Amino acid sequence: MTIRKGQFITVEGGEGAGKSSNLAFIRVLLEQSGIEVVFTREPGGTALGEDIRDLLLGHKHTGMASDTELMLMFAARAEHLNRLILPALSQGKWVLCDRFTDASYAYQGGGRGIDMRRIQFLETWVQQGITPDLTLLLDLPVQTGLDRAGQRSEPDRFEVEQTAFFERVRATYLERAGQEPGRFRIIDAAVTLPQVQSQIASVVTAFLETLEDVHE
Amino acid sequence: MTIRKGQFITVEGGEGAGKSSNLAFIRVLLEQSGIEVVFTREPGGTALGEDIRDLLLGHKHTGMASDTELMLMFAARAEHLNRLILPALSQGKWVLCDRFTDASYAYQGGGRGIDMRRIQFLETWVQQGITPDLTLLLDLPVQTGLDRAGQRSEPDRFEVEQTAFFERVRATYLERAGQEPGRFRIIDAAVTLPQVQSQIASVVTAFLETLEDVHE
Repeated sequence: MTIRKGQFITVEGGEGAGKSSNLAFIRVLLEQSGIEVVFTREPGGTALGEDIRDLLLGHKHTGMASDTELMLMFAARAEHLNRLILPALSQGKWVLCDRFTDASYAYQGGGRGIDMRRIQFLETWVQQGITPDLTLLLDLPVQTGLDRAGQRSEPDRFEVEQTAFFERVRATYLERAGQEPGRFRIIDAAVTLPQVQSQIASVVTAFLETLEDVHE
Repeated sequence: MTIRKGQFITVEGGEGAGKSSNLAFIRVLLEQSGIEVVFTREPGGTALGEDIRDLLLGHKHTGMASDTELMLMFAARAEHLNRLILPALSQGKWVLCDRFTDASYAYQGGGRGIDMRRIQFLETWVQQGITPDLTLLLDLPVQTGLDRAGQRSEPDRFEVEQTAFFERVRATYLERAGQEPGRFRIIDAAVTLPQVQSQIASVVTAFLETLEDVHE
């Protein structure tokens, strides 16, 4: 037994992985099980975090140094944890978050080449032992994702990167999933939306059953 | 001999220490000696840094977590170093900066109580061995400074703190000055402006003479 009562679920994935539709689907699945869900995102989730998001994703500061980018991500995350995630979890609510620290490893570590130990230092410091209970990684080949994402308008400051960048992002996500099989569930996101949702439903149902076993 | 040719001078001090007038005075002293000076400030100094400054000093995000505050400071600093300070120094220009990392130790470390080792980690990472060559600390009793500052309008998000906060800020500045006597010069800022400027002129002249000795 810990003081934390709510569960913390994160969803990760590269460009065109269908995060938005699938996050909405997960939210419905949880709410149908009678769970009170706080739905949030990174970078962002608080008023200050959303202002930082604008700096990070907008095109006003295109030449930003990679250290700056990483520290802005963690500045937003510190605020998000202190003001929203930890209070919600301690009240027994569940938190469903669109991206979290795995994205910093994938994009700033894998993508930009920042030393992973630096990311780890910030993670340990800011998260104070809090990590997601379940992470769904929506995985698909980079080119498939980019083709899908290209159909949308107005790419953000990350979405204009080159294919090699996204290959490093994907490789880092998969490597992390391999290192933490207890937390990660890899979802094949290259298939049709109903097929993706079927995989997600199985994962979420299995996760809920695990918790019931614990509480019996 | 290092690759760096320009000198890096910072000015620190608490509320009401007269930083603005004295920075302008130092700038004139240097320019009269034929030195090309880049005059800048923290947090800020770049377009992104100034946007971060607005988040830090404005009143929109009053409840900001102290970790968030520290990381925003270093995000702005990473940008400042990479985009402005290091390029200027490597071109042989001098950089005169209104506050730098000593302020993070004083305000976020001393003032907010963040573990100094965390600040040190970020400093080592972001600064890559670059530290100021000379730091002028404008020191005066907290109450004297607050009385002076109170005559100005619209205090920022730091200036609304309590006296005990500023006492910790001052103590940290003085402690750091004691630890690095080679870099710091403590200026008594409680006296009249002409008296302060007389001390500053002596310090700057002596610093310039040291450099001439080295180059002879």
